[in-house]
Formats: sequence, structure tokens, C-alpha cells
Amino acid sequence: VQSLFLFLAHIVFFPKKGPILSIKTPKGTRDFFPDYQVIQDYIFDKWKEACLLSGYQGYEGPMFEHLELYTGKSGDEIVDQLYTLQDKKGRDLALRPEMTPTLARMINQKGPSLKKPAKWFSIPRLFRYEKAQKGRLREFFQLNLDIMGCEGIEGEVDLLLAITRMLKSFGLTQADFQIGISSRSILSALLKQRNVDNDAGVYAALDKKAKSSPEAFAKLLSEAGLNEEDQSFFADFMNVKNLTELKPFCQTEEATAAFDELNSLFETLNKLGAGEYIALDLHVVRGLAYYTGVVFEVFDKAKSMRAIAGGGRYDNLTKVLGGQAVTGVGFGMGDVVLRDLLEEKGLLPESLASQTDVFVATFNSDTLLAFEVSENLRDLGLKSQHSLKSQKIKKQLDLSNYFGAKYVLFADAEANTDGKFEVKNLKTGEQNMFSLNELAEACDV
Amino acid sequence: VQSLFLFLAHIVFFPKKGPILSIKTPKGTRDFFPDYQVIQDYIFDKWKEACLLSGYQGYEGPMFEHLELYTGKSGDEIVDQLYTLQDKKGRDLALRPEMTPTLARMINQKGPSLKKPAKWFSIPRLFRYEKAQKGRLREFFQLNLDIMGCEGIEGEVDLLLAITRMLKSFGLTQADFQIGISSRSILSALLKQRNVDNDAGVYAALDKKAKSSPEAFAKLLSEAGLNEEDQSFFADFMNVKNLTELKPFCQTEEATAAFDELNSLFETLNKLGAGEYIALDLHVVRGLAYYTGVVFEVFDKAKSMRAIAGGGRYDNLTKVLGGQAVTGVGFGMGDVVLRDLLEEKGLLPESLASQTDVFVATFNSDTLLAFEVSENLRDLGLKSQHSLKSQKIKKQLDLSNYFGAKYVLFADAEANTDGKFEVKNLKTGEQNMFSLNELAEACDV
Repeated sequence: VQSLFLFLAHIVFFPKKGPILSIKTPKGTRDFFPDYQVIQDYIFDKWKEACLLSGYQGYEGPMFEHLELYTGKSGDEIVDQLYTLQDKKGRDLALRPEMTPTLARMINQKGPSLKKPAKWFSIPRLFRYEKAQKGRLREFFQLNLDIMGCEGIEGEVDLLLAITRMLKSFGLTQADFQIGISSRSILSALLKQRNVDNDAGVYAALDKKAKSSPEAFAKLLSEAGLNEEDQSFFADFMNVKNLTELKPFCQTEEATAAFDELNSLFETLNKLGAGEYIALDLHVVRGLAYYTGVVFEVFDKAKSMRAIAGGGRYDNLTKVLGGQAVTGVGFGMGDVVLRDLLEEKGLLPESLASQTDVFVATFNSDTLLAFEVSENLRDLGLKSQHSLKSQKIKKQLDLSNYFGAKYVLFADAEANTDGKFEVKNLKTGEQNMFSLNELAEACDV
Repeated sequence: VQSLFLFLAHIVFFPKKGPILSIKTPKGTRDFFPDYQVIQDYIFDKWKEACLLSGYQGYEGPMFEHLELYTGKSGDEIVDQLYTLQDKKGRDLALRPEMTPTLARMINQKGPSLKKPAKWFSIPRLFRYEKAQKGRLREFFQLNLDIMGCEGIEGEVDLLLAITRMLKSFGLTQADFQIGISSRSILSALLKQRNVDNDAGVYAALDKKAKSSPEAFAKLLSEAGLNEEDQSFFADFMNVKNLTELKPFCQTEEATAAFDELNSLFETLNKLGAGEYIALDLHVVRGLAYYTGVVFEVFDKAKSMRAIAGGGRYDNLTKVLGGQAVTGVGFGMGDVVLRDLLEEKGLLPESLASQTDVFVATFNSDTLLAFEVSENLRDLGLKSQHSLKSQKIKKQLDLSNYFGAKYVLFADAEANTDGKFEVKNLKTGEQNMFSLNELAEACDV
């Protein structure tokens, strides 16, 4: 609709002017106009607030990395989606498609001076050249929370409590989202138990179960090298609905240990009151190659959208990148799907409204006076606006409405009002004589 | 020093492990470890706060644009510094080296629906392939404030008041910074007055005055096509110290109008109390090609660093990009020089300290209890931390010190304390029995 409007505007307003609007936003990227950005900021602020409450520390990295940081580490799919470039010295670089390799590199560079466990968060911008569609763009933001140097399931517990707190802080409830939890270590143990060694291939096949018919799924498993018996085993396995049903599948020592760990994670989260948000979901496998333990994904309850968030344990990544062995567990939450969900549930704040506390209007259109009063208001912590040129009072009031100002202050250099100004509350229509301090109080600053 | 340390750490701790630490941060980019990021966030928050107070609305754009948005619009120097790439369909893209072309493109796309004046701000990440050195990196952040659709000097006034407010909010005073102001329109009128038509060439030469000897400067002017008489005129012009000295240079109607505008800007800023922060500085020319009116740069008073900020009026940019004519005036302030200056002046906050309100310690190392109490504290708005594994109380207290926690709360499942906990203030050493609500009050949440 917007592009249609722009096209029409183009025709109507600039009929013959050459390359009008010829340069557009690159495909799969967004422009964040102020009414869009204000909501983006709302999401980022809530994210950050929840992270700090839960004791995570912020970090960031470069927007691009040496290409070799990704090739062979992140899994083939994501490498195919890289935006690559060379700098002027011919070094191969790539725009970051995910944050975890950067994190692992930083942890490696920090070396033994790293205080463990390190609970870190970041809101990186990421880039993946894939088909742009609903809920998926080529350029997006993704909150990342990670804990490095925590071997026990306390890491998973901490992350899952933080996710729950965060989503609840947006007003979402257990009627809106669910965290599906599974375990790569169980899968890996079962593959060993059945002497299958193409782990990555089987993970990729299992990952497609939800989108496949039983026949298509059987075909995928067969292509991954599973014989009929194995296929039937994993088809049954994927139909498991709870831990009681899962237990009999885990026969070896390794499988039992992995089951016990998962069981303990559920028990702990239940005791901590997060039980209503979590469920065993063996369809959760995760696309990236580096996961080694518990994996999880957060979905809208109706499962009508892509995953809101996903993550898991990756205990070998820093080592794979040539550094010390530091255990890791983390997750990412993209901005696009979350924003769609919050919009659908009516949980986004009103755009731009109340970004202005006071609009300063002047009867004789005295811009200098408007500047002066506005600056005094800003000194008191009030967000203030005024017209930037001589305009009739009617035009000034239009502007104050456009900005959604809480109050209009009428300034008049001629009037002797003992430092008091006529002030109108735009919501109630009430008018009062206020000093600037009284106005600050009324605005609760 | 840091890289030396890493190199030594590499030798000492990982003597024979193959490609250890071989993947580094790309040249001219930064890793933002938590103790660095917390200060970065401080700068961003202050920037944002000042922008909102002064009535600017946030916006953002894509991290890369179609290459043609920059070629020929931004001036040659910046085009030479572009990081270019192609997407998988062969489209030519470039990482954004500055925000103004994106802004102009967005304004063009908005078309006639744009409410004017539009006061917008953004904190984009920018990329320029140039020699990495003190105060200059290849990847940096730059606050941008712009006003679109304001013809009068009220636009410049508004921006310069916002800069001043912002720098003062960091604790900087007029002893620390100065805003040098000049005018491209005066220069342009003088060039016309003397029948010189190589405007861009002369601007480039004048821009180098400060770094050149009188002889070298004369040579630059000569190379820009100025005859001896013109050279002497502009050498004298650049030595002008105040508006009184400047006036006699402006003889034509156009030059007089440009002078009057600049004079009026100084008068207005003086009346609004900003006089102590500004000075006429004809050495300010600005590198970018698109400026058309007043230009300005902010320097540390000692002029020992690169410019803290710079900007000016660019009235034709949207039209050059093929859109409607919308006047613009704006500036950019990079994070690198500002951070250096704040550090030099001792104005940065203590890193990471007080990011933790409460550290929850447990005598019997009961991680579940620590989680439970922490979650209750977080519900009350307190930033809480605890150990993620069973650890002796000594180790837990080490951790609480590392995090710079304000309080340590001792939780003990066995003790019957009527919902009260032993709490120690780590600053004063004082110990009290507090309920969680009392602790929240003590933390002023």
C-alpha cells in the first residue's frame, strides 16, 4: 500500500522531473521513519531493561568480520546467505549473519582474564541474504543473551527465566507464547545408540518434520541414511509429547544422562514458577551446526508465525574457533516477529504520542521568545517544541496536535504575568496559569 | 598494549594449539567488551535524552544503500572511502559512510506527506575506509540531528542550542569546547564577486588553510585557479577574526545578504545565552560538497583533537537526489572523539559499577533458592545477580565485589526470618534485616 501511494504521489506531484524516487531502500531492508522508530526504541528499551534486571552486561562487536569466522562454523545454510565484501586491501569480509561467532571470538581474545560465568547481552544488527517475506527480512535486529563458562543447567534456567520475564514485560502471557524445549544431547546419544553417524544430516531432516507429510518425512530420514527400523524409531520419537513418554527411548548411559539433565531443567523451571510457559517439543532441533545440548524455541501459542526466539547450548564453539574451551549457552530474539506479535495482540504503545510534554505557542509569533521559554522548560527536564518560523496561532496549534503535546503554553512578551503562563491541558481542555516549575510538576518530571 | 597482552597470553596459555586467536577484529573496527560498552551506552543515552528534550524524533535507515546514492553526491573524498559490495543479484551496494544521503532519500520517499519542519535524529553506525588513527576509526557511531523544511536561521539556532545542551549535559563547559561558525553562502558570493567559478576547488583549498604554511596555502589557492590578487584577497579573508572585520569583504547584494544572515544568527544565539560557546571561524569550510549556507564545527577548546561535531545547511540535496526541494540543516557528532574528550576531562562514569543492585548469596549454596530470591527482587525492579553453581560463600562474595553490587543479601532456606533477610551494604559495611520491599526502598527503586 505504501509503495502504491509513493508511486501515485510520484505521478501526481512530480510528473516530469527525471530520476524521481529512483533510488530506493535496498531489498529486504527497512526505513525506520519516526512513527516506526519510536516503537523500535520501545522494544529495545524493554529488552535492555529485562537484561539488566536479570544481571546481563551489554557488549557489541564490529558489523562485519573476517569471512573465515563464519565459513565452516555456522552451518552451511547461513554461509550461503552471507553478504560478502572485500576491503581495499583485498581482505575477505562478511556482514555478520549472527552474533555468536563474534561473541566466541571476543571470549577467545579475552583469554583467561574472563570472569566466569559471563552473562552478556547485545542487540546486534544482522544480515542474511534470503528470500524477504513476512517475519523475515535481510537486515534485522536480534537480541542475544549468552552465558559463557556455566556447565550446569543453571545456565539454561537463567536464560529461560530471562526470556519469560522479558516477554511478560511486553504484556504477553502464557496464552500468547510457549517455549518448546528439546535436547541435542539426547538426539546425539540416540544416534550413537543406533550406530548412525550422520548427525548433521539427521538433524537437518528432523528439523523439517513439522513442515512435512509422514511420507515426505520418511523420505527425508531415508535420504539422511536411516534404515527402515531407524526411520520408524525416529518417527515415533518425534511424536513423543512428554518426559514420561520420552524416558523409554533413552537406553544407554549417555542417553539416560541427557534425559536426566532435561528432566532436571523442567523440574527446576517448574519449581521457579515458569512451568506454564514451557513444554517438551522434540520438533525443536535448530538449524545451526554448533549446538551440543539443550535447545529451545519460543513460538506464539497459535504457532502461526516464525519462532520468536531460539537458542541452546554450544559447548565447543570457542574451541572450534581456535581458542580455549569455554562452555556457552544462549539465544537470539529477532525484532521482526516479536513486533508483529505485539502488534497483533494490541500491545504496542501509541506511536509518537506523548513524545512532547509542552508546545510553546506565541500570540505575536515571537520565535525568539518561543526559543527562550522552550530552553527554560528543557532545563527543567520537559520535552518542548515550538514553531520555527512566524506562524498564525491556528497553525501553531495544528503543530502542537501533530506532536501529541500534553500541554500548550501561551507565551506573550507583552503580558506582565509574574513568571506565570497560560497553559492548556490538551487532553482535558483545562486552562491554568502556571509557572514553569508548576508545569514541570504537572508533567510529573 | 592490549594486543601485546593478547599476544603474550597466546604464547603463555595456549602454546601449541594451532590457529589460536588467528581471527581478529577487522582493522579499524572495535570490540565493545562490557566495561567499554557500558560507557558507550552512557553516551548514547545522554545523546538521546538531549535530542528528545529538544523535540527531535528518532529515525533509522538501512546499514547499506544502493551505491548510486553516494557516487557524485557526497563529494569525492568520501566516495573513495566507501566499503562497496554486490548482493547475490549483482546489485551494487555500499556500507553507509554518512547518514545525510539516507535521510534525503527517506524525505524524498515521504513526499508531500512530510510534516515540516521535521526535526529528526539518529545514531547510525557508519563506515569509511580510511587510515585508522587516533580519533578516527573505519567503523564508528555518529549522532545526526537534522531539520528538514526550515528556511530561516531558526533551524541553525535550534541545532546549535541542542548541541550546546547536549555537550553541557556531559559536564563539558565553555572552557572545554567551542563552536566555530562560518558560511558557505558568503564564500560562494565572494567567489562570484571575484568571477571565480571553481567553487569546489577553492573550498577544498581553504579547508586546508589551518594545516598549511602561508606559502603552501598560497600554492593551494593558485592550484585552485586563483590569480595573485584573488589569492591575497582570500588569504586576508581567512585571517578575519570577527564580524566587524568580515563586513567590508561583503560588497555585492548576495554577499551582504549572506553576511546579514550570519550576523543575525550570532545575535540570536547571543540573546539566547549561547554566546559564550560560539565564535566566527572562517577556517570552517567542511569537506562535503553539498553544503549551501551556514557551516559549523565543534572543537575542544585546546584544538588538540579532531572536530567533535560538524554540520551546516544543505538546501538542495533532496532535489539533487531526484526529489522535491526540501531545505535541510544538520550536523553529525562522532562517538570516538567525544569519548576521548570526556575521558581526558574525567567526565566518564565509573565503568560497570552499580549495574548490580543486589547479589544474592546462599550459605548452603542453594542455587534454587538464589534463583527464587533473585526473581522476586527483579519483580520489584532490582538488578540482581547470584552464583550459577554451588560455591563457597567466599567465592560468592568475590563475585559480588566483581559486579560492584550495592548490597549482598544472604539467603538461608533453614532460617525462619519472617520474610526478612540479612543484608549487607557493601559501601558502608552496615548490616540489617530487610524484607525485599525494604531493600527495594533502600535501593531507591
